[in-house]
Amino acid sequence: MRTLIKDTNDFVGQKVTVAGWVNSKRSYGKLVFIDLRDRSGIIQIVGNEILAELKEEFVVQITGNVRDRAEKYFNDKIITGKIELEAESIKILSSAEEMPFDIHQPELNVTLPVLLDNRSLSFRNQKVSEVFKVQETIVKTFREFLGKQDFTEIQIPTIVATATEGGSELFSIDYFGKKAYLAQSPQFYKQIMVSIFERVFTVAHAYRAEPSVTTRHITEYLGLDCEWGFIESWEDIMNIADGVVKAIFKAVKDNHQNVLDDYKIEIPQTTKNTPRVKLKEALQIIFDRTGRDIRKEPDLDPEGEREICKYALEKFGSDIIFITHFPTKKRPAYAYPDPESPTETLSFDLLGKGVEWITGGQRINDYKTLQESFKSRGIDISSFEKPYFEAFKFGMPPEGGFCIGLERITQNILELENIRQASLFPRDMERVDTRLNSVDEKK
Amino acid sequence: MRTLIKDTNDFVGQKVTVAGWVNSKRSYGKLVFIDLRDRSGIIQIVGNEILAELKEEFVVQITGNVRDRAEKYFNDKIITGKIELEAESIKILSSAEEMPFDIHQPELNVTLPVLLDNRSLSFRNQKVSEVFKVQETIVKTFREFLGKQDFTEIQIPTIVATATEGGSELFSIDYFGKKAYLAQSPQFYKQIMVSIFERVFTVAHAYRAEPSVTTRHITEYLGLDCEWGFIESWEDIMNIADGVVKAIFKAVKDNHQNVLDDYKIEIPQTTKNTPRVKLKEALQIIFDRTGRDIRKEPDLDPEGEREICKYALEKFGSDIIFITHFPTKKRPAYAYPDPESPTETLSFDLLGKGVEWITGGQRINDYKTLQESFKSRGIDISSFEKPYFEAFKFGMPPEGGFCIGLERITQNILELENIRQASLFPRDMERVDTRLNSVDEKK
Repeated sequence: MRTLIKDTNDFVGQKVTVAGWVNSKRSYGKLVFIDLRDRSGIIQIVGNEILAELKEEFVVQITGNVRDRAEKYFNDKIITGKIELEAESIKILSSAEEMPFDIHQPELNVTLPVLLDNRSLSFRNQKVSEVFKVQETIVKTFREFLGKQDFTEIQIPTIVATATEGGSELFSIDYFGKKAYLAQSPQFYKQIMVSIFERVFTVAHAYRAEPSVTTRHITEYLGLDCEWGFIESWEDIMNIADGVVKAIFKAVKDNHQNVLDDYKIEIPQTTKNTPRVKLKEALQIIFDRTGRDIRKEPDLDPEGEREICKYALEKFGSDIIFITHFPTKKRPAYAYPDPESPTETLSFDLLGKGVEWITGGQRINDYKTLQESFKSRGIDISSFEKPYFEAFKFGMPPEGGFCIGLERITQNILELENIRQASLFPRDMERVDTRLNSVDEKK
Repeated sequence: MRTLIKDTNDFVGQKVTVAGWVNSKRSYGKLVFIDLRDRSGIIQIVGNEILAELKEEFVVQITGNVRDRAEKYFNDKIITGKIELEAESIKILSSAEEMPFDIHQPELNVTLPVLLDNRSLSFRNQKVSEVFKVQETIVKTFREFLGKQDFTEIQIPTIVATATEGGSELFSIDYFGKKAYLAQSPQFYKQIMVSIFERVFTVAHAYRAEPSVTTRHITEYLGLDCEWGFIESWEDIMNIADGVVKAIFKAVKDNHQNVLDDYKIEIPQTTKNTPRVKLKEALQIIFDRTGRDIRKEPDLDPEGEREICKYALEKFGSDIIFITHFPTKKRPAYAYPDPESPTETLSFDLLGKGVEWITGGQRINDYKTLQESFKSRGIDISSFEKPYFEAFKFGMPPEGGFCIGLERITQNILELENIRQASLFPRDMERVDTRLNSVDEKK
């Protein structure tokens, strides 16, 4: 019967069996010390020749007696730092080849390509893998926050017949001799389901065939998407987005202070009322602060995003800020124009630490208005009639929603340099696990 | 401020505002009755000419007084059957066009193609949409059951460079001028993550380009996948699968008795020890019971699956049964051969109500043995070296796992005729939302 390493503290003076990976090994003459790692922590094993054949990353089961360490050998870096296990018998469950680089340094000092070229190995570095514990908490918090508010979780397909956000950047699939595509977003489907369950969310795979390599884009990513009806004001949507993000911050801090410490960062600062600034105002603020004139632009550029976040932090003490009222012509056809200023939409981005994390807004819920909006952009509406427009044709409440880029928010909360560090197996223009240029051109 | 319909029971004698869809309308002279539907239930609205213009599926907000009904008008089919709301003012939030067919009959008597051709509309039938409330509960129960046992939820990509289960039935993607594929399963990735988090699960999209149209296959489906290390016996894997399935049954019964009633079914029967039968024995049992001789076959055919489930129910009172020890040559290269009988694997299927729901087993965790197994099947192992084999090369504990077909288990628990009824937006050879033969051949 296996005892988890963190529980060995309760068994001083008793015999236990632990199992895990050899994290490190040190020999002093015949005396051998091993740090054994399992999912719960690390324990020091002391033994003699029976430990001699073990090497780093061997998987082993060890039975022995738990005993107190002398106080001068206490190690407060591990949860079992006041005890050790005296090995009596061992069983090797798996051997391991020699490591090509030292994986258990606190900082894995390799370049990103090396990190990704050796993905399965580099995960064994704690700082590399604990990112995904944080990511799990982010997803879970999103679900729990919305679940408590009566949202229904739905499952959305990724193979689609048409584009949702415009025609470019689509991956095409050979679908039984016809063409289908990978979904750019679950947008149409979550909207449809508002007409059934009123409030829905989904963790969706989304794809962009963007032929560029940046530190903030990957080709397959995850969206924490939600959408709901009977909104009383479009600001409701920002209120929920604000609530979700603050709940995520709290959950990450409550559950992963150790990771924040490893990354030497603090959870983002927030204020009760997250600042909300219209895009036009934001562009003016940037001009006033820096003299850089992008006031005619329909969006913030990366430099603008960083500057407006600096402003939010300085002026309001907030690492997050809503930018609202993006131009109608730059938002998708389903975005709801502001009745008081139809060239602007009731839409928003939430920026965090200098980068866009969330995009959302109210949607056009009237069937005819929605059709007109699509038509006015030169879109052939016949391919959207079913199932998308059909949901509006038969009665759709005022509605809206938003999408959180999961890798994006993970990256930025942890201040990772590259979004690829926030995706278990990142795909980009040059890589699907292995580098594509190492593969024969098959087409 | 909106009151949910189910909460109006608490407001007799008071004024409330409700909002929802007009489920039905009846007029008696100037008196108009409306059944208004929201996500929480249905309430009867009484009014006069202010309700006259409303039609079925209009989305409307109504303010009025809640009053008791006379006892003779009690309606125990709705949760607000002892009250009604006297309308004072209304606001139309969305109009609706005339329904092409009657959607609020208890049974939506349309063929499957009509159901799917009008997907957004047919969801408004309660029996059609409540399937996905049950499905939500299945997913949630899977997550909670494993979460409590210290499993980590991971997110797995769907774009892959190679096949996991063999070369056929893959959808290919134009990936920046190279070929990539849609994942057949998250198998390799969940195994890799066992070497990091020990215990992992994921809700994964998986794809099969099977050029056939059956009632139990769709091209894009969801797998409730899990995998974990340090198993002490391969039967551990069946124990967890058994526990998950029974937890799902309980959760569906506890939360959705109304759906079971609508479908006139009972939750599957189980026994403390779910029967476990080797494939060879199962084939013999089928021969003994029916005279049909498939004893030389490497798997059960659909008729055999139904027969062995009949046997399990008659002999053990169980609607579920494990079939174990599938032939090595019919299982994937990573399946663990039985040391006592290497032509058989330590693998299983769980059948429920006559159909395969789950497939799982122990995997080969030794690096060299795994490579040999791939090679012996004529697979070019070079494309699996990273990241898959790499995880084994550096130490992998004895491990295994399983996958539950989400649509399959949803279909069979609810005894739906066709798996498409258990997928919100089912994709098959002939359909991606709309029928493919209605779209121009674009390729």
